[in-house]
Amino acid sequence: MDNNMQKYLDKAEVLIEALPYIQRFNRKVIVVKYGGSAMVDETLKERVIQDVTLLKLVGFKPIIVHGGGKEISRWVGKVGMEPRFVNGLRVTDEATMELAEMVLGKVNKELVQFVEGLGVRAIGISGKDGGLLRVTKKLSDGQDIGFVGDVKEVNADILWDLLEKDFLPIVCPVGLDDKNNTYNINADDAACAIARAMHAEKLAFLTDIEGVYKDPRDPETLISELKVSEARQLMEEGYIGGGMLPKLNNCIDAIENGVSRVHILDGRIPHCLLLEIFTNRGIGTAILDDEGSRFYDDK
Amino acid sequence: MDNNMQKYLDKAEVLIEALPYIQRFNRKVIVVKYGGSAMVDETLKERVIQDVTLLKLVGFKPIIVHGGGKEISRWVGKVGMEPRFVNGLRVTDEATMELAEMVLGKVNKELVQFVEGLGVRAIGISGKDGGLLRVTKKLSDGQDIGFVGDVKEVNADILWDLLEKDFLPIVCPVGLDDKNNTYNINADDAACAIARAMHAEKLAFLTDIEGVYKDPRDPETLISELKVSEARQLMEEGYIGGGMLPKLNNCIDAIENGVSRVHILDGRIPHCLLLEIFTNRGIGTAILDDEGSRFYDDK
Amino acid sequence: MDNNMQKYLDKAEVLIEALPYIQRFNRKVIVVKYGGSAMVDETLKERVIQDVTLLKLVGFKPIIVHGGGKEISRWVGKVGMEPRFVNGLRVTDEATMELAEMVLGKVNKELVQFVEGLGVRAIGISGKDGGLLRVTKKLSDGQDIGFVGDVKEVNADILWDLLEKDFLPIVCPVGLDDKNNTYNINADDAACAIARAMHAEKLAFLTDIEGVYKDPRDPETLISELKVSEARQLMEEGYIGGGMLPKLNNCIDAIENGVSRVHILDGRIPHCLLLEIFTNRGIGTAILDDEGSRFYDDK
Amino acid sequence: MDNNMQKYLDKAEVLIEALPYIQRFNRKVIVVKYGGSAMVDETLKERVIQDVTLLKLVGFKPIIVHGGGKEISRWVGKVGMEPRFVNGLRVTDEATMELAEMVLGKVNKELVQFVEGLGVRAIGISGKDGGLLRVTKKLSDGQDIGFVGDVKEVNADILWDLLEKDFLPIVCPVGLDDKNNTYNINADDAACAIARAMHAEKLAFLTDIEGVYKDPRDPETLISELKVSEARQLMEEGYIGGGMLPKLNNCIDAIENGVSRVHILDGRIPHCLLLEIFTNRGIGTAILDDEGSRFYDDK
Amino acid sequence: MDNNMQKYLDKAEVLIEALPYIQRFNRKVIVVKYGGSAMVDETLKERVIQDVTLLKLVGFKPIIVHGGGKEISRWVGKVGMEPRFVNGLRVTDEATMELAEMVLGKVNKELVQFVEGLGVRAIGISGKDGGLLRVTKKLSDGQDIGFVGDVKEVNADILWDLLEKDFLPIVCPVGLDDKNNTYNINADDAACAIARAMHAEKLAFLTDIEGVYKDPRDPETLISELKVSEARQLMEEGYIGGGMLPKLNNCIDAIENGVSRVHILDGRIPHCLLLEIFTNRGIGTAILDDEGSRFYDDK
Amino acid sequence: MDNNMQKYLDKAEVLIEALPYIQRFNRKVIVVKYGGSAMVDETLKERVIQDVTLLKLVGFKPIIVHGGGKEISRWVGKVGMEPRFVNGLRVTDEATMELAEMVLGKVNKELVQFVEGLGVRAIGISGKDGGLLRVTKKLSDGQDIGFVGDVKEVNADILWDLLEKDFLPIVCPVGLDDKNNTYNINADDAACAIARAMHAEKLAFLTDIEGVYKDPRDPETLISELKVSEARQLMEEGYIGGGMLPKLNNCIDAIENGVSRVHILDGRIPHCLLLEIFTNRGIGTAILDDEGSRFYDDK
Repeated sequence: MDNNMQKYLDKAEVLIEALPYIQRFNRKVIVVKYGGSAMVDETLKERVIQDVTLLKLVGFKPIIVHGGGKEISRWVGKVGMEPRFVNGLRVTDEATMELAEMVLGKVNKELVQFVEGLGVRAIGISGKDGGLLRVTKKLSDGQDIGFVGDVKEVNADILWDLLEKDFLPIVCPVGLDDKNNTYNINADDAACAIARAMHAEKLAFLTDIEGVYKDPRDPETLISELKVSEARQLMEEGYIGGGMLPKLNNCIDAIENGVSRVHILDGRIPHCLLLEIFTNRGIGTAILDDEGSRFYDDK
Repeated sequence: MDNNMQKYLDKAEVLIEALPYIQRFNRKVIVVKYGGSAMVDETLKERVIQDVTLLKLVGFKPIIVHGGGKEISRWVGKVGMEPRFVNGLRVTDEATMELAEMVLGKVNKELVQFVEGLGVRAIGISGKDGGLLRVTKKLSDGQDIGFVGDVKEVNADILWDLLEKDFLPIVCPVGLDDKNNTYNINADDAACAIARAMHAEKLAFLTDIEGVYKDPRDPETLISELKVSEARQLMEEGYIGGGMLPKLNNCIDAIENGVSRVHILDGRIPHCLLLEIFTNRGIGTAILDDEGSRFYDDK
Repeated sequence: MDNNMQKYLDKAEVLIEALPYIQRFNRKVIVVKYGGSAMVDETLKERVIQDVTLLKLVGFKPIIVHGGGKEISRWVGKVGMEPRFVNGLRVTDEATMELAEMVLGKVNKELVQFVEGLGVRAIGISGKDGGLLRVTKKLSDGQDIGFVGDVKEVNADILWDLLEKDFLPIVCPVGLDDKNNTYNINADDAACAIARAMHAEKLAFLTDIEGVYKDPRDPETLISELKVSEARQLMEEGYIGGGMLPKLNNCIDAIENGVSRVHILDGRIPHCLLLEIFTNRGIGTAILDDEGSRFYDDK
Repeated sequence: MDNNMQKYLDKAEVLIEALPYIQRFNRKVIVVKYGGSAMVDETLKERVIQDVTLLKLVGFKPIIVHGGGKEISRWVGKVGMEPRFVNGLRVTDEATMELAEMVLGKVNKELVQFVEGLGVRAIGISGKDGGLLRVTKKLSDGQDIGFVGDVKEVNADILWDLLEKDFLPIVCPVGLDDKNNTYNINADDAACAIARAMHAEKLAFLTDIEGVYKDPRDPETLISELKVSEARQLMEEGYIGGGMLPKLNNCIDAIENGVSRVHILDGRIPHCLLLEIFTNRGIGTAILDDEGSRFYDDK
Repeated sequence: MDNNMQKYLDKAEVLIEALPYIQRFNRKVIVVKYGGSAMVDETLKERVIQDVTLLKLVGFKPIIVHGGGKEISRWVGKVGMEPRFVNGLRVTDEATMELAEMVLGKVNKELVQFVEGLGVRAIGISGKDGGLLRVTKKLSDGQDIGFVGDVKEVNADILWDLLEKDFLPIVCPVGLDDKNNTYNINADDAACAIARAMHAEKLAFLTDIEGVYKDPRDPETLISELKVSEARQLMEEGYIGGGMLPKLNNCIDAIENGVSRVHILDGRIPHCLLLEIFTNRGIGTAILDDEGSRFYDDK
Repeated sequence: MDNNMQKYLDKAEVLIEALPYIQRFNRKVIVVKYGGSAMVDETLKERVIQDVTLLKLVGFKPIIVHGGGKEISRWVGKVGMEPRFVNGLRVTDEATMELAEMVLGKVNKELVQFVEGLGVRAIGISGKDGGLLRVTKKLSDGQDIGFVGDVKEVNADILWDLLEKDFLPIVCPVGLDDKNNTYNINADDAACAIARAMHAEKLAFLTDIEGVYKDPRDPETLISELKVSEARQLMEEGYIGGGMLPKLNNCIDAIENGVSRVHILDGRIPHCLLLEIFTNRGIGTAILDDEGSRFYDDK
């Protein structure tokens, strides 16, 4: 057998290895929070979209929730807006919200375009479409920081309808309050709320870190699997800080509301989604309920 | 019977008068090209959205196709872009296209928000979603004027799927070419292409004129009903000029490809859509095929 | 703007005002007990049928339950039947029942004809069709008054099936007992039983009075909104008498079994149904549960 | 084996013999024109209803079309109506039509009641329901004989919808003309029109004769199988007269428009329908197309 | 009326008598354990298949579960296998299992062929198809007797899917354990497990005895109806022995798990299934729950 | 990045490479004729089943048609049957047919077991089930060689129904003639007939040769792509002989009746199916119509 042939056979073996994973998640909803470097670097971007598209094609039901990345800041600069602050907190005033929505819309359609380019039917919506996301004003330490919202209600029917029609939904985190005002929503919060409402099998956060560390200064302390009770303890003991704190709270919230497993993935690793889902190489940190491991006992 | 009561009875009579019209267009597709003053004036805007929402609620299948109105120019100014020209023609370069798409996206979601505010399920998409609109580059007298496209293909399945799920689709006229580049499409062209592909019952253009005139300087020459052959003759004889020429070509194209009737309405008249559809008051100019009148003989 | 135009604009406004009402009752079942003057006067008759037909066309699911009005008496005279009495009570013997069923059948098909004439798909059935209404013999103060029945069971599947096939069902109140004997049913009772079984949104009685009065001799005491507990109290305190007593009992029964609101309407007012449903003009008396008003807070 | 047992075994054999017939007509539409003695004699009536109910239960799709039999005449007498004549022809004036419709309605519901009593879901409709039968005025030798109609159009959707919902439709032959006037239709004509519109497998006329005779005075000349061309020839040669002539024309019309076989059965023989369908005992006369016998070659 | 005619009329009456039974079991699942003499005698075989086919055609949902009868022994001899014994018990070793599966497969397709020959859509499956039957090793008094299994799990979806597609499923009792080894299952056990999982209306065992006797030596003590509590008592009191003991345990198990009635029929009587189901001639012994008779009170 | 990680990333790339192939064949029917060495060698067997299972899981609709391989000969020997010959041709007499069917049934269920073991819903049927394959006797040079059949009719509904219920159908090539006799069918013929009837996208023959050679003695003359006209010419010019002749005729027959592409694959290469479908490594010979290559222009 020639060398070339061996190469092909190896490829076939890789496909065959994916078989049990394809089976396990068949027709399951997987919410992917897409953000960070994976949204800036063109190569990583391509990888992520390929991954999600593949998930769709082999029978999963992925939903992408994305942020605006650095594009919003870039456009705020371009237009020459002056940021406003209240008690040291940046405020999303009406003009900023208008621009943010435009930028998020642009990013949204770029992702649609990417997915369509791979031959998969995508639809880009915001939380306004079909009344998907209803919000209330979020206060930051009691301060009004403008049009920033907490998700109060997810109209999951919209997404089920689009999935039934075989669309890959791509959602940008903008919503309306009861008075029909437009609000920005933190993309992590939106992804978590959607995963809860859809009883997703998985919620995966693409981040710019390797995962949760016991000691962020020591790469050896990366935690591969974290049960909800352990996560709570880590937070109480003060190990978790910065941006990880709200993210971990979202993870716990998701797990306690019917999502089977949440993943904090390192979006800087190409194909991190596929690696996590189709191989036994754990990427980043998996958060699961206290009896969680029983589900995927063979992994 | 008191005066007040009489007022209510009159109202009931109006509703009853609408009965045959509701019946006639039940489950029929009506494409509304939304633009001009009706998109700028807040009161007119509200009226249009109310009209379309009512059409949806009483069982029609309206689809809105909108332009960006004056918002695009406003933002071009705001960002400080320099327009580029080729042989005297304005060119939609990449940067302009990017901004135009953002503005159109913003307008699109505003319309969604408005419709949702009236309790109807709307979804805002562009021609990228689900590959709805495929374009080829449009040349203007042989000149390349940048990312301006002619609709080559409408993937009507997308709209049928959304209608089946009871959405009111709101479409902004942006599409992709075969190499996945983003193009702007004239909203009239997009509306016409969609109406053709959906075999719409009606295609209505909201404009800033009263209709088609034989002599534009003489308001008495407004034409109420125009058969395709008459329209052709008018054009040949040089009566039609300016922006009306391509619009009338679109009308003829639609009629000849299965749309039952096209209306050029004066969007400056509040509720012009309802007036045209629900009363025997003809608004603007109706274009129909040469045997057209037989369809609505009672009107 | 000419006067004529203003007239049309006013009409458009009326349609727009109906929008929230159309939305609220979309796909809801509304049972209309049709009887009294509105069934005798040809003009009123036309109005009622127009109203119900409009309700159907804009997306509601109306069901008509009708009596035989004065037609039965007329035919009893025509055929020369001698009424039989037991202890002063009129008895529905077999011959009367046979004639009553014939007359009710005739009225039933007349209504079908009317609705079909307005272009809506109607089907006229009696409680025998599909076993819709099963009855037991009704005793009046312990006296056997012949073939008069109480509804024991409603086979609602029949009506759901017909509604699913987009029929407007028109029901005449005749049913069978366990031994397959034919019985007459009071149309109010039949309408109430059907509304209960269908969990109707509304049950509307078209009557020949303006509504419920505290003091029937004083028109100023007309009650516009009556909660179940208040209705009970009025009855206990002896304010309610005559034919209103069983009707009010039916109303309470309906509300307590899942019907959202019951209306006692004055069928002598043209379009009373539309006025009640599409305007904020309260017609007659609305009966609702003790927390009822919260539902339609804007009305 | 005891005698009793043998009796049961014989019964089982009868059921088994029905097997190929059940198979052949599974899900096929069979229109039964019900009239004559079989409608007057209580025992025969029961037999017919049992037969049709059995056909329904074993998977066929029977539809009954019935006349009013002698009931109409009885009621005309009872009410004391004076028949009107024009040139010697009896005229169905408005009063007669009203009474006829009432009587037909009564008969219709009696049949419903009978079928329901056997546990099968029946629905009794007239040609008015759902616009089932549209008519034009029938002239008799150029004379206007009142409200007697020819079927112009059958709205078969109504019947398909009711069959889909598992009803056994029972139709009385009353219809509307274009001006919404009520007309009586000859039940044979109505049955034939419905069978044509439904592309029925069979159309069976229950009559008071044994079938078609070559010589009506000679019982030996009963024709068991009659091809369309033979039927035409018999008529041309003057063998067929009286009421048989229009009936035979109906038969030919049905066969030539897609009905596979038409049967003229002797309704005075109990279970004539079952005998015709489930045994190889030919009852009456079967009319078939000129290549007809190939279909049921084993019969 | 001639004699011949009388014969036909008698036949029609038999069909009519079947009407209430057809109605009662319409769309109900009936599991038939097919074995014993009825599987060996060609005439009986034909009768059984006719019966089940008729049940299918008139709207029931029969499922056949069959054993291999004497064919397995015949083939063991033919191939010249030596039976193995452990402590006096015959052992189903791998080679025997292989042969048994082949013979069962052959019998299975013969039955398919038979049913198809009568024009009914059959499909022959084993417990392997769609993972229908999962087993655990059965021990006989603690002894390992090879590949003989107890049903641990029935994947009823498979059968519902096949029934929905209008197949008559014919099942041979072979299943897989957790390690994917092939096991033989006692056909009675398989039939009982399937009837339980499908909540069958009836489970009928075709046997070579007349039914359950109080005293097997005295034919007069045949029990026609046996309640579960009575069956238990008979077993406790030692009346039941031999092969009847496990069969009766299966019956009780079925009744206690949702099967309405179990029948032990004498398969040597031709058409015993039809006789039991379509006549009031009780064949063999019916086992029912302690309140059982209320269901079929008219039988 | 560690070595291990690189290995995983390579795997992800392989999955991504499969993306366009998964897309291209999504929901397409692929008929696999399974036979030869790939059926004997346990490792190859596993590979084939893995491949087909993967095709199923990623959205294709594979159907396996298999032969009995060497098992039939083995059992003929085991049972001690004497082969019969007519004019030098081996005859499939009744006894041989019986045994062949048993062996094919065994092989069929083994395949089912294998596929089920990988978690995919399989169903093993023969051409008898649902009347899938109807045959006529095949004569070999005019000689009667017993129960060997040519496929006369494929009842494709059966397979569509099973595919709709998400089964992977595994078919053994046994069918019935008009008199309900059992016949053996050449597995190539059966696969070809099924592919035709299903308008399969692909028909793949797993063989023991590398493909079609111009000169079988010279491995360099392996033909990678063969148009129908070229195949015809090769046959006419005498290049093709032995078992390849009927196979090539089958290929041409399939292509000319709506199958897009037929593959003669070397079943001795592990994962030859995946290699052919998911990579640009051509395996064996592809037969296509004369304009064929336009379909998969990127391959």
